[in-house]
Amino acid sequence: MKSGRPRENVTDDSTGLPHQRISVLRLGHRRERDKRITSHLGLTARAFGADEVILAGEEDESALETWRSVTARFGGEFECRYEAKPLSWLRRFAQDAGDGEPGVIVHLTMYGEPWRDAVSVLERNRPMVVVVGGTKVPGEIFRLATHNISVGNQPHSEVAALGVFLESFVGPLEESDYFAGGEIRVVPSLDRKKVITSDD
Amino acid sequence: MKSGRPRENVTDDSTGLPHQRISVLRLGHRRERDKRITSHLGLTARAFGADEVILAGEEDESALETWRSVTARFGGEFECRYEAKPLSWLRRFAQDAGDGEPGVIVHLTMYGEPWRDAVSVLERNRPMVVVVGGTKVPGEIFRLATHNISVGNQPHSEVAALGVFLESFVGPLEESDYFAGGEIRVVPSLDRKKVITSDD
Repeated sequence: MKSGRPRENVTDDSTGLPHQRISVLRLGHRRERDKRITSHLGLTARAFGADEVILAGEEDESALETWRSVTARFGGEFECRYEAKPLSWLRRFAQDAGDGEPGVIVHLTMYGEPWRDAVSVLERNRPMVVVVGGTKVPGEIFRLATHNISVGNQPHSEVAALGVFLESFVGPLEESDYFAGGEIRVVPSLDRKKVITSDD
Repeated sequence: MKSGRPRENVTDDSTGLPHQRISVLRLGHRRERDKRITSHLGLTARAFGADEVILAGEEDESALETWRSVTARFGGEFECRYEAKPLSWLRRFAQDAGDGEPGVIVHLTMYGEPWRDAVSVLERNRPMVVVVGGTKVPGEIFRLATHNISVGNQPHSEVAALGVFLESFVGPLEESDYFAGGEIRVVPSLDRKKVITSDD
């Protein structure tokens, strides 16, 4: 079993490569209709080891607040922000992930290639954006994406797809290290809720 | 890689055991607030190989209709129904899964034991109910459950938790067999939407 994926600019235990920054880009958010799905999506990104969620579509401070609040309470260094022009941002990222070199764009879609095949060949040495669509994804996303990947070819949920994809790609996290600095820590238990707060 | 999990009363390829019926019980549904999360949850149950979703909390025909409609269009034999008294039903299932012998109750909770440890020891020869809570889960569920299992001890999403758990426990499905009989079939593609309808 691979061990935790450290967040700082050090070598990942599992790969021997420098830490790979993973962002999740949520396209097409609608404040009312997608409120809880988008909230769950960002929390899933955080829980399964992404570094950041980027919200696009309708601006929604309440989603950002939820993610910041959970990070403050449960620890870690998860970031989030709103992006008004996600397509422009993605086009740039495809060319320049911040260091003048291309980034990796993974588009999760029920129409893509099987994730089990794709995960093992994905680039692990470049910043990655995982794009998660809403109802209507512009066709350009399919072309911009380095990989169009499906977690099954059945309709289900972008939240489940993101969870399964990240779990598979990132692997197990050492939660007590990875989510350090929070106010609350859950202690795994066979039969009850067991929580340690930072006052304990 | 394990191959598909046949639905009929035959031997599962992966285990050599008779087909294990897996139901997902969604507790505490609220029609307005949980509409889309519950919908995604049922679709995730179907896509990752559960046989049935049981809705509890507020009765909601629209959720059942969504699941039935997806099953008609995309195939397979997924079932769904509403249960007015989920705790009574679970208490009975704990004693008698329909054949006079106890069923297995898996409760997904962020407070439980790590899923990676649990999955390998779960019973594969008895009907299983995977219980997924809403906001407030009665304490009795922790005691009724054969296993309280957490998919990470961070707050994220019951949809992601269910997807990761089922993906791990059930394993890969041969989708074209498992979801036979639908009107639509998605063909995995590297770069576009590719769909076959039953008219083709």
